[in-house]
Amino acid sequence: MSFSPLVDRLMESLRVLPGVGPKTAQRMAMHLLERDRDGGRRLAEVLGVALEAVGYCRRCRTLTEEDVCALCNSPRRDDSVLCVVESPADQLAIEEAGGYRGRYFVLHGHLSPLDGIGPEDIGLDQLEALVAGSEAAEGGIEEVILATNPTVEGEATAHYIAARLASRGVKLSRLAYGVPMGGELEYVDGGTLSHAFNGRLPFQGD
Amino acid sequence: MSFSPLVDRLMESLRVLPGVGPKTAQRMAMHLLERDRDGGRRLAEVLGVALEAVGYCRRCRTLTEEDVCALCNSPRRDDSVLCVVESPADQLAIEEAGGYRGRYFVLHGHLSPLDGIGPEDIGLDQLEALVAGSEAAEGGIEEVILATNPTVEGEATAHYIAARLASRGVKLSRLAYGVPMGGELEYVDGGTLSHAFNGRLPFQGD
Ligand SMILES: [Zn+2]
Ligand SMILES: [Zn+2]
Repeated sequence: MSFSPLVDRLMESLRVLPGVGPKTAQRMAMHLLERDRDGGRRLAEVLGVALEAVGYCRRCRTLTEEDVCALCNSPRRDDSVLCVVESPADQLAIEEAGGYRGRYFVLHGHLSPLDGIGPEDIGLDQLEALVAGSEAAEGGIEEVILATNPTVEGEATAHYIAARLASRGVKLSRLAYGVPMGGELEYVDGGTLSHAFNGRLPFQGD
Repeated sequence: MSFSPLVDRLMESLRVLPGVGPKTAQRMAMHLLERDRDGGRRLAEVLGVALEAVGYCRRCRTLTEEDVCALCNSPRRDDSVLCVVESPADQLAIEEAGGYRGRYFVLHGHLSPLDGIGPEDIGLDQLEALVAGSEAAEGGIEEVILATNPTVEGEATAHYIAARLASRGVKLSRLAYGVPMGGELEYVDGGTLSHAFNGRLPFQGD
């Protein structure tokens, strides 16, 4: 026996959520059906709308339902510094740490040849064009901070980007190793992140 | 700073799920937007449809998108025994334990005067009518098993139901105390449940 076909399908669908196994999916389905149908309806609607409307910012590639995101549109940010991160969650962690006033570029991942994820998949053509385009301009990008995760893949991606941008007239830097090796920026506390930001070093290729 | 308004709304909506705090909601939203949009779309659709279509079985009140559920419709179940449970999850746990071949009645909760949950809210008028209606019929209900949770509220609800049905010509029984006191049926292992079912005792009021 199981629940009715539609209730079973609901439990199965809930398992797309990270960390949700069969028992948790059942508890979630029962909670929504038995105790919070209004909340469930709101979730269904917002999820549908968000997946339809949320795309990448045309300039920095962060997640946004606008053509250009609020941060890229803000006149109060410093155009001379560009911080390259792997994910919107990393970007948020840096913003919440405070202190950084420049712009961002979001890769949505890192280079991973074995998974077929190459430079164009993480927007590196767009990043190079952005840096190249600013060379000619007044008040262009002077420094690119390679704030990829301090993991093997993140480091490799930073080195690759550094090589691509080496011929451009920009300073390349990396976050200071206040951030723990092998960790993910998203889970680093604000104080450590802020410290690592201030202590950032010139980028040195191998 | 936060994410874009729509992404923030998605994270907020995900918090209707039990056990999902701000950090988990963020991880879920990022997973759906960054890595599994198809899964997310399916979830939005199934959730919307399920909340619209899934209601209570007209006969036993379990969750179903049909007028009468598959178990009530099955000709292979024993009409002479009716098992009263608090939730569809409890019903499923008993079915998965195996051995029970009768019918069910689902309360969707228990009596809770302080929360304003009275007999009519948990379907007791319908339960009484079901038992009364079968008195006249050939092959009607002979035994009602009060399988509410072994908690204070579950016990109180069982006693109340027993009093309501006392004048009807049915045997009333309760699960044997193989089930741990203070626990919830849903989380009891199949072997214990099955044992408790076989060892069920005549119901004794106070
Ligand atoms: Zn942007
Ligand atoms: Zn039914």
